[in-house]
Amino acid sequence: MTKLGRLYGLGIGPGDPELLTLKAHRILTTVPVIAYPSLENGKVLARAIVADYIRADQIEIPMPLPFSLERSSQPHYDIAAAKIADQLTAGRDVAVLCEGEPMLYGSFMYLFQRLAGRFETEVVPGISSTLASAAMLGAPITFRNDVLSIMPATLEAEALRDRLAVVDAAVIIKLGRHFAKIYQILEQLGLLDRALYIERVSQPNQRIVPITEVQAQEVPYWSLILIPSQTQPQ
Amino acid sequence: MTKLGRLYGLGIGPGDPELLTLKAHRILTTVPVIAYPSLENGKVLARAIVADYIRADQIEIPMPLPFSLERSSQPHYDIAAAKIADQLTAGRDVAVLCEGEPMLYGSFMYLFQRLAGRFETEVVPGISSTLASAAMLGAPITFRNDVLSIMPATLEAEALRDRLAVVDAAVIIKLGRHFAKIYQILEQLGLLDRALYIERVSQPNQRIVPITEVQAQEVPYWSLILIPSQTQPQ
Repeated sequence: MTKLGRLYGLGIGPGDPELLTLKAHRILTTVPVIAYPSLENGKVLARAIVADYIRADQIEIPMPLPFSLERSSQPHYDIAAAKIADQLTAGRDVAVLCEGEPMLYGSFMYLFQRLAGRFETEVVPGISSTLASAAMLGAPITFRNDVLSIMPATLEAEALRDRLAVVDAAVIIKLGRHFAKIYQILEQLGLLDRALYIERVSQPNQRIVPITEVQAQEVPYWSLILIPSQTQPQ
Repeated sequence: MTKLGRLYGLGIGPGDPELLTLKAHRILTTVPVIAYPSLENGKVLARAIVADYIRADQIEIPMPLPFSLERSSQPHYDIAAAKIADQLTAGRDVAVLCEGEPMLYGSFMYLFQRLAGRFETEVVPGISSTLASAAMLGAPITFRNDVLSIMPATLEAEALRDRLAVVDAAVIIKLGRHFAKIYQILEQLGLLDRALYIERVSQPNQRIVPITEVQAQEVPYWSLILIPSQTQPQ
């Protein structure tokens, strides 16, 4: 009987290919099979990040996963999981490429739920855009007793307002069409002068703009707002 | 006039030397000078993480920084900053080693405040133990509209209770002698059965124990509790 392959959830970081870890790079360049989400709406860039590292003899499994994680998306994950399971059953290791950190708001978790019980699975952590934004903005996030809150802009306005009203430091992710809502809340809470805006963290087209100059209708999904702590190191 | 050196805040990850990014590895192995906190209390391990990558011809600046970030610690940072400034002024690039992610509860930020205005500075993000713990525990943290709260165990019990009472998902860091306090709060809030405990994330002596079996008096500083989201991917 063939030994089963090993499943890797490979965190590949926010966009700069040099922000892969040595471990992710080693696994990526040695596994026989790689799988990655493939979508037509431009929101998925996992394969593009590591394109230069992929070998011609590696088997590629593009997974047409829906971006909105609704109940109707289950069959897509079932199909992707079945394709990956076929490779693992044939004894081949499979690395699933995950933008940022696989366990943080990642679509990998839906495959993890389907496969980790049946196959040996290892998750390799990656640099999340959430935390990397601070390095890119040159803005320390938290000190000493600060609490950091990471929240998606997709939350209801009231929930966002309640959360943001009490934060020490925060990162608001997945802005896209929710930017205007967030801007208004930050204005109401007096947080606008602390808020830093960044698009496409560490990608070639990374863009940092004062938040008051952002055009709401042009905000991409891959953008976030960082509100650093007010505590100052001395 | 000599061109000034460049200052790097180098995130080197939580402990596994393979969790450095390709970028941090490149900079670490090419700069003429490296600096790192050096303490006798065993809480600092930056140099040990990358020991195998350091060359004999690199200048090393151990910085005896106090661990508790109190007002009295300012002179220590002033002295360390002055030593680094000397090297930068002499035209040498200096990489400051930072466990985890430099901008998140890191002592690098105190050097950043002192030096970034005078010297060209680049922060290289690193894998934080906070987020890496999820990979090691095999526990997805957040989905969809979840909010993640990262908080230090050093907070007052009441503040911790208020924060933890409303979290979707949380990571409580720097447990050490605060473990018993945290345990009691989690018990009161009915969060104990969701709480996952891990020591020394990704280090050779990493240890995962059911939280109910942890001996409070043996909990190291480098330990954390992860409370994953209750939302389940489907």
